[in-house]
Amino acid sequence: MSDAHPMWLRPGPIPGLAGGAVLITGDDPLLDTVRAEARAAGMHLVGPDQPAALVRISIDRASGGAPGTETGFVLTGDGERTVVVAGGASGALCGWFEIVRRAATGRLHEPGTTRHEPAQAVRILDHWDNIDVHPVMGQVERGYAGGSIFFDAGRVRDDLSRVAAYARLLASIGIDRVAINNVNVHAREARLLTDDLADVARIAAEFRPWGIRLHLSVSFASPIVLGGLETSDPLEPAVRAWWREAADRVWAAIPDFGGFVVKADSEGQPGPFADGRDHADGANLLAEAVAPHGGLVHWRAFVYNHTQDWRDRTTDRARAAFDHFTPLDGRFADNVIVQVKHGPMDFQVREPVSPVLAAMPHTRVALELQVTQEYTGQQRHAVYLAPMWREVLDFAPFGAAGPTIADLAAAGGGIAAVSNVGDDGFWTGHPLAQANLYAFGRLAWDATLDPAAILDEWIALTFGSGASGSDGEIAAVVHELLDDSWSTYESYTAPLGVGFMVTPGTHYGPSVDGYEYSPWGTYHFADRDGIGVDRTVATGTGYAGQYPEPWASTYESLDTVPDELLLFFHHVPYSHRLHSGSTVIQHIYDTRFAGVERVDAMVDMWQRLDGRIDGDLFARVRDRLTEQQRSAREWRDHVNTYFLRKSGIADERGRAIHP
Amino acid sequence: MSDAHPMWLRPGPIPGLAGGAVLITGDDPLLDTVRAEARAAGMHLVGPDQPAALVRISIDRASGGAPGTETGFVLTGDGERTVVVAGGASGALCGWFEIVRRAATGRLHEPGTTRHEPAQAVRILDHWDNIDVHPVMGQVERGYAGGSIFFDAGRVRDDLSRVAAYARLLASIGIDRVAINNVNVHAREARLLTDDLADVARIAAEFRPWGIRLHLSVSFASPIVLGGLETSDPLEPAVRAWWREAADRVWAAIPDFGGFVVKADSEGQPGPFADGRDHADGANLLAEAVAPHGGLVHWRAFVYNHTQDWRDRTTDRARAAFDHFTPLDGRFADNVIVQVKHGPMDFQVREPVSPVLAAMPHTRVALELQVTQEYTGQQRHAVYLAPMWREVLDFAPFGAAGPTIADLAAAGGGIAAVSNVGDDGFWTGHPLAQANLYAFGRLAWDATLDPAAILDEWIALTFGSGASGSDGEIAAVVHELLDDSWSTYESYTAPLGVGFMVTPGTHYGPSVDGYEYSPWGTYHFADRDGIGVDRTVATGTGYAGQYPEPWASTYESLDTVPDELLLFFHHVPYSHRLHSGSTVIQHIYDTRFAGVERVDAMVDMWQRLDGRIDGDLFARVRDRLTEQQRSAREWRDHVNTYFLRKSGIADERGRAIHP
Repeated sequence: MSDAHPMWLRPGPIPGLAGGAVLITGDDPLLDTVRAEARAAGMHLVGPDQPAALVRISIDRASGGAPGTETGFVLTGDGERTVVVAGGASGALCGWFEIVRRAATGRLHEPGTTRHEPAQAVRILDHWDNIDVHPVMGQVERGYAGGSIFFDAGRVRDDLSRVAAYARLLASIGIDRVAINNVNVHAREARLLTDDLADVARIAAEFRPWGIRLHLSVSFASPIVLGGLETSDPLEPAVRAWWREAADRVWAAIPDFGGFVVKADSEGQPGPFADGRDHADGANLLAEAVAPHGGLVHWRAFVYNHTQDWRDRTTDRARAAFDHFTPLDGRFADNVIVQVKHGPMDFQVREPVSPVLAAMPHTRVALELQVTQEYTGQQRHAVYLAPMWREVLDFAPFGAAGPTIADLAAAGGGIAAVSNVGDDGFWTGHPLAQANLYAFGRLAWDATLDPAAILDEWIALTFGSGASGSDGEIAAVVHELLDDSWSTYESYTAPLGVGFMVTPGTHYGPSVDGYEYSPWGTYHFADRDGIGVDRTVATGTGYAGQYPEPWASTYESLDTVPDELLLFFHHVPYSHRLHSGSTVIQHIYDTRFAGVERVDAMVDMWQRLDGRIDGDLFARVRDRLTEQQRSAREWRDHVNTYFLRKSGIADERGRAIHP
Repeated sequence: MSDAHPMWLRPGPIPGLAGGAVLITGDDPLLDTVRAEARAAGMHLVGPDQPAALVRISIDRASGGAPGTETGFVLTGDGERTVVVAGGASGALCGWFEIVRRAATGRLHEPGTTRHEPAQAVRILDHWDNIDVHPVMGQVERGYAGGSIFFDAGRVRDDLSRVAAYARLLASIGIDRVAINNVNVHAREARLLTDDLADVARIAAEFRPWGIRLHLSVSFASPIVLGGLETSDPLEPAVRAWWREAADRVWAAIPDFGGFVVKADSEGQPGPFADGRDHADGANLLAEAVAPHGGLVHWRAFVYNHTQDWRDRTTDRARAAFDHFTPLDGRFADNVIVQVKHGPMDFQVREPVSPVLAAMPHTRVALELQVTQEYTGQQRHAVYLAPMWREVLDFAPFGAAGPTIADLAAAGGGIAAVSNVGDDGFWTGHPLAQANLYAFGRLAWDATLDPAAILDEWIALTFGSGASGSDGEIAAVVHELLDDSWSTYESYTAPLGVGFMVTPGTHYGPSVDGYEYSPWGTYHFADRDGIGVDRTVATGTGYAGQYPEPWASTYESLDTVPDELLLFFHHVPYSHRLHSGSTVIQHIYDTRFAGVERVDAMVDMWQRLDGRIDGDLFARVRDRLTEQQRSAREWRDHVNTYFLRKSGIADERGRAIHP
């Protein structure tokens, strides 16, 4: 299908399945896809007269034996055979890939019956791909894996074989929707909605056999930019008519089109504020247009003042989404999903969970994650993000007895994430970053999965497992290298939840003061005495008060705020003692030294695989680890020297810090 | 000639000259230029039978009545008429423009005889123009006035009328050479030397009527890049032959070609180090090639380690040019000019004078200035640079009894500067930045000119003077606004000679720590106790010892180092008391507050000219001043807050500094 790395779907016969018979009952294009997959795995298709087939897959839309949703399935193993009864064709496809996973992990035909349904009804990947190539940013905004798989040379690619391969990979992890273009919709990309529909339909056709719907990011100013109207006012009849007609044209070209993604009134993008309307007015405008077609509107809550005055310590970017959106709860149409980043800032290595996710009970709210590693090493650092996502999903905003973030998202909005793939041969730049895409899909399907188990599953699929005769050393090294890598990354970058400290613009590499005097609202306020942002109700910006109890009180008090979020919520002296027993300054020094040691160990670990693994992959990972090692040292030294110069407090363990 | 602003050569009849007779004797293309200028000024040409002409210009190559150089002239006024006797045709042209200046400043026919000769025999303007447009930097590296006047759409412009106008302007201030392309020679621009020679010859043809020679920046790797050789080793016969043939081709196309400018082994440019040769080997290679044609090689001394480790406080970029070049003194060919930036770092608002300028008595050394305002406000801030240049030119490295920098340059290398013009309608972005180009030419001709007098001369030429019936208020405002503007800019940017503190990459706007942890060798080492770079011999990098006495001792000691260079040479506590009586920290606060007040006054001053001056020019300057005002506030607040946070020392006058 393409000469790119196969990721977690290794080509060829699947041991345990190959040579066996498979019975797939029913008539549906997706079932044809399953049949083709089974054949590619080395199985032979048989008819219903051979009920003893190794694998049997059928659809039972209504009976008590099947799950209530199209995508769900019931899987029964008896030690020798597996039977899948799905609620619909997409469930059959998901059931097939569950069998593939079980084959790779030594659980094929495992006795017992299990029900499988996606926890999140909407599981969408957002691409920040552009058609035009930005001279600095490249083609994919915050992309670290080459150019777009969808676009090239100013238009949709002629050869979409990579898209087909991608669709198959996504289907295998349960992703059911993809938005193909950047939420920052520039002039060229705006026209995807109109001039390029025939080409967009070609992309949709590649996703269709895998049960994946295509979405487009659209500009709120489309009626002006594309329609020649003088306004994009959501209450203007001509604007409403324009959007309805635009939607009609899209669905005429792509009958299973999914809907629109919108970033409005954010970082310079147009929005309803221009006409004195609010975000509910704006979102409902589009919702009205797509509703007749069963379409969705993903409306991003990432709205804040990006031209803030750093001198003003009362304005708090962390508050912004809550302040903008929660007053609108209940006013959004049923087919609007308000899409909320997992933290209140911007995909930092450590943030508290956004209080918006728990503050709009009458709105479909989606959790937005970032698979592309913008602030987490840009796929030059090996950082396995699933443990962070799992923490977010598990967070119980109202306390342990209440719903988790996963529950709240499952109640309507589902989950979205920014993809990390490009036209790079390994898809993700860093081959080990494939694990993040895999884990996102798996957690969107089932938020209770253990990140370490997902990791092992990905390793088994990607590198082979013991059961299929592979090298246990590979699995051990990759697991050890990635398992705790999020914590490693955190330990040498911005400490204790304070965030940023990155090079402006690129967001790669340390610059402690890089955003300190900027208009972006991303400050640490370090002075000679202390550091941190006072977001308490008592003396700070009041952000802590946006949480329900018990978290409002937990974050408000120095006695209870978790160490890892201390500087997000409080400004404290360097001598402040953490619950861990260490002082803030000593914690900074200790973790930075430890972080580099852990990266050194990762480099050594990987070296153990020299000669035991594909040479190109080995070399790519080795080179990235070498860069991670260099970068981690730079982080350690820059941060340590910065705080030594500022605090004047020496490392209590006497290690060398450059003066 | 073009619809751009005329700069200091206002079109139309010149009062005092128009209507009068001019006698120009001799036969030379440059004299034809003079004749055309006289006609354009409203004069009528007469023959030798009318000796009573208002202006008489002739050439006397050998007699005692003329200066010894081609470009010199003797001017005699008798109150009613002016007679110019020039050493050559270029002197006649210079003489004519001296008459124009006198007409504008009320000194036409002033009684008396004066001899005029350029102090610097080589007066070259370097353009950092590229053919290709860099996505971030634009077309002109460190250019703040639009695109290149030479290049457009990937090649030399068809319409060179702006070049013709530019040549006339340069001739009027005595510039005699122009290098048309960037010293960072990229792939496309390298080919100017070969493929584009016919087009380069067209540019040269525009300069020729004004007595200006064209130079090219060339890549030291040309034999490889253009010639297909495997080496650019200067001792390799094939390389020497390649350069000789390249030079022969250039001079065949452009008989009055000037020579080559080279940036080698600097900031990534190729150079002789690659083959284990030194800069004398490299420069002499090119010198050998151009010598038969009377050509020059300008070889830049801007060589340092730009991948320095910030952790290493012993390496000192300021030392680099001296360390690299002074051991080579005496080894450079006669037609090599080693071109040295005025300070040891990089065109900061305040630097000591480079010790290299005084350390190579057996080498032709040129002083390099930067008219384009890279680190001095980028032509968004009004900064008149002549006072800074005059300080450099007046500096006496061996003490008051010895030669000045102007004398040392005059001994062979002359003076060079980076131009500040582009295809902007006002040529220089900020209309008042035209004064810098003007002043550079005038100081290159005569380093003893008073910057304030040059300013008034420029104002009179540009805006008209009292003598020609203009508005004295305009002259007063422009003078007051610019006269001390260098000091104003210094007062709100990096303090006390420490330099930089600018936004990385763009070099515009404050970022105190922007270059602090970078590989560029540009640090201030501020910590909670103090700031500055210890460059003493006793305890620092030893840079102070690169100066001869009395300066080595002057800079070495805190008792004698000038306040304005304190932090360039010493690391001191914030409480250190300056000779001015202020402490370092209080000086930082005081000057930053005062700087903003001075910019506020500039804004008010300019407003007085509303309605009294060309509307486009008024608006352009007003808009730039508004930006300067905003930027100065940003500098003040960023710097003050940075040092308040770091030092913990409050302003002793109790003014508000953001915490």
